[in-house]
Amino acid sequence: MIRVERIKRDLEALAQFTATPGKGITRMAFTPEERRARDYLAGEMKAAGLEVYTDAAGNLFGRRPGKNPKAAVVMVGSHIDSVQNGGRFDGAAGVVAAVEIARALQELGKETVHPIEVVVMTEEEGSRFGAGLYGSRAMTGEGISPEELTNTFDDEGISNGEAMKAFGLDPDKIRQAVRPAGTVKAFLELHIEQGPILEAAGFKIGIVESIIGLRTIQVVIYGSADHAGTTPMDMRRDALVGASKIVSQVPSLIQKLGENTVATVGILQVKPGCANIVPAEVKFTIDLRASDNEIIEKAAAKLKKMVAEICSPLNLEYSWEELLAVQPVATGVEIANIVEGVAVQKGIDTMRMQSGAGHDAMVMAKLCPIGLLFVPSKNGKSHCPEEWSDYEDIALGADLYLETILTLANGQGPQGD
Amino acid sequence: MIRVERIKRDLEALAQFTATPGKGITRMAFTPEERRARDYLAGEMKAAGLEVYTDAAGNLFGRRPGKNPKAAVVMVGSHIDSVQNGGRFDGAAGVVAAVEIARALQELGKETVHPIEVVVMTEEEGSRFGAGLYGSRAMTGEGISPEELTNTFDDEGISNGEAMKAFGLDPDKIRQAVRPAGTVKAFLELHIEQGPILEAAGFKIGIVESIIGLRTIQVVIYGSADHAGTTPMDMRRDALVGASKIVSQVPSLIQKLGENTVATVGILQVKPGCANIVPAEVKFTIDLRASDNEIIEKAAAKLKKMVAEICSPLNLEYSWEELLAVQPVATGVEIANIVEGVAVQKGIDTMRMQSGAGHDAMVMAKLCPIGLLFVPSKNGKSHCPEEWSDYEDIALGADLYLETILTLANGQGPQGD
Repeated sequence: MIRVERIKRDLEALAQFTATPGKGITRMAFTPEERRARDYLAGEMKAAGLEVYTDAAGNLFGRRPGKNPKAAVVMVGSHIDSVQNGGRFDGAAGVVAAVEIARALQELGKETVHPIEVVVMTEEEGSRFGAGLYGSRAMTGEGISPEELTNTFDDEGISNGEAMKAFGLDPDKIRQAVRPAGTVKAFLELHIEQGPILEAAGFKIGIVESIIGLRTIQVVIYGSADHAGTTPMDMRRDALVGASKIVSQVPSLIQKLGENTVATVGILQVKPGCANIVPAEVKFTIDLRASDNEIIEKAAAKLKKMVAEICSPLNLEYSWEELLAVQPVATGVEIANIVEGVAVQKGIDTMRMQSGAGHDAMVMAKLCPIGLLFVPSKNGKSHCPEEWSDYEDIALGADLYLETILTLANGQGPQGD
Repeated sequence: MIRVERIKRDLEALAQFTATPGKGITRMAFTPEERRARDYLAGEMKAAGLEVYTDAAGNLFGRRPGKNPKAAVVMVGSHIDSVQNGGRFDGAAGVVAAVEIARALQELGKETVHPIEVVVMTEEEGSRFGAGLYGSRAMTGEGISPEELTNTFDDEGISNGEAMKAFGLDPDKIRQAVRPAGTVKAFLELHIEQGPILEAAGFKIGIVESIIGLRTIQVVIYGSADHAGTTPMDMRRDALVGASKIVSQVPSLIQKLGENTVATVGILQVKPGCANIVPAEVKFTIDLRASDNEIIEKAAAKLKKMVAEICSPLNLEYSWEELLAVQPVATGVEIANIVEGVAVQKGIDTMRMQSGAGHDAMVMAKLCPIGLLFVPSKNGKSHCPEEWSDYEDIALGADLYLETILTLANGQGPQGD
């Protein structure tokens, strides 16, 4: 059975593997810290009776064979890489829960029809090479392109491919990580919510129904750099005044579009950026998310119209560029129903919810049905040293998944045989 | 008489002395470029019959003795240092006009009662060591403090004092640059407007009546860094939304306070500055200027009230710090009247106006009556390679000052003997 003290021990052990001791977790892909975390987890997996191997993308697996070795794999896991000065639960909670499930399965001694694999995904955050969701992308569809390996670099100018080589991997074999269609029965991920909803609603477990889509837009406002002292107010073309009108109106525009729609201006840069010069250029990003792609389209159109309407009377020019578009993803209804059934049986209250953040499960949905469970984040905080989730909540999620995995690995659920 | 071709020649010669050829003028204090400009001007001063000397602050003078060697000096000049990638007229126009006046005086062969000094001021812009108005401050009041020499540094960590030493000056003697009260009869400066008013009004010469006061305020808005995907809009404390509401309302607040009042947010920095994190902290400056100190006080109070009123309902904290306060300065009425009288006599239309920018004349006003003439800036542009003023307009200003100086140096005007 799931034991919270082992989950606590593993998470505390992983928290030691950071490049910034005392300042949160900094554990980027293919670094010495990540190597130590992998070594620790490989040891725990072996102790839990799993066959440990690493795929061509560096994803670390612990495999529990099934009675039918050719049956599709039931996979459970998450990632262990972090952002700069992040927290100890983002990703790690799901990995540790998966290892604990393997231990519980070993103790139960139950054989399953389908093999079960615990997975530690590579570079989910994209903190080192930018793109993120690297391990899951390597497993699905076309996999990672050779261009990505040679054209993405870390802050020190080391390419993704070079870092892989230095880590003992062969970037030329990256396509070998692709999992052929039909070979994965389901992917289950437990993750911290990274938001305030579960805590505010008083639930310990959130069953994610959909992962909201994301569009990142870059807007540049062009005005004129004039002297702050000698240019009358009515003769200015102040790019920051225009940008500020836009940014200040984003929340009211978005809140009319439904409760799961959010938009954030997180980057805003002013040129020339001198106290005594009227801003000539302001570049900012809009991070726009909604559970429905139509709402994203509608919001983007309304935002673009607002930008134009604000710039025109101020005699400002603008550019509008969509940097990133990720479609919303629905998680498997059948898996959600199984998890919910287990929860009802165990008397655990769960809440159906949406994920505002992207996760490996979102990518894995291209390959197989997925399940995604959330546990509460204290004060909604994540990606910071204060990030906290209770070990008991993680254990509760692992317990739900243990039963769910047994059900799936014995042939029930989607694509059941 | 004033000859426009010599003004053009001198300005073209000075434009060669830049650290960024082809990218505007970058000529900071105590650099090799500035040395070459000084050497050129010293040569021109000597050719115009002036006695050349440098004071303890590095201000370069060319002196034309008076019949009464003990009489107070009539001083005319400006600066030759520039901002990074600035223009060729800011400061240099006034220096070249002053040298041309000396040539014209030599050709006229007229003796004056009072000595006349052409001055090239050190580090007016503050581009290298930050504080600016260095040469004029060194001449007035307490002069430059020893702390400023040791505690202000350029981008490479060289202190102002060290740079002076490397340039052949003795920073320990800086107080020797102070001009005792009563030893300067008047200071006249010709400068480019650096704004659009003269051009828009169709005047070639502006007679500055006052230099507007300046207050620089730094505001920091404090919110909470939350995940852009997982934090509902109504649970956010977005520092940039608050800052944007403030910045966007600055123009309408200021425009109610009178036509010569201006306010600019030129610096705005967002932390943590990630596309997918709600901004936790936004720091921005407000550059506030008016010709009346009461209006500055009133505007600052209104702005502070607005900051508080916007932050409160958004659950944001803020800090408010006044970084710099410069009082408005009235130029001498008598000198303005003399200049205007000369202009009427010569049939030149002039416009009384205010200066929105600080100049050495503003500091010199602590020491003696001042005069400040503006010539138009093409499209109001300054501090950029496109900065342009017509040589003919500079010659026109020099011509007005030639007569004005003769009048002052022969005993008329303020403090006349």
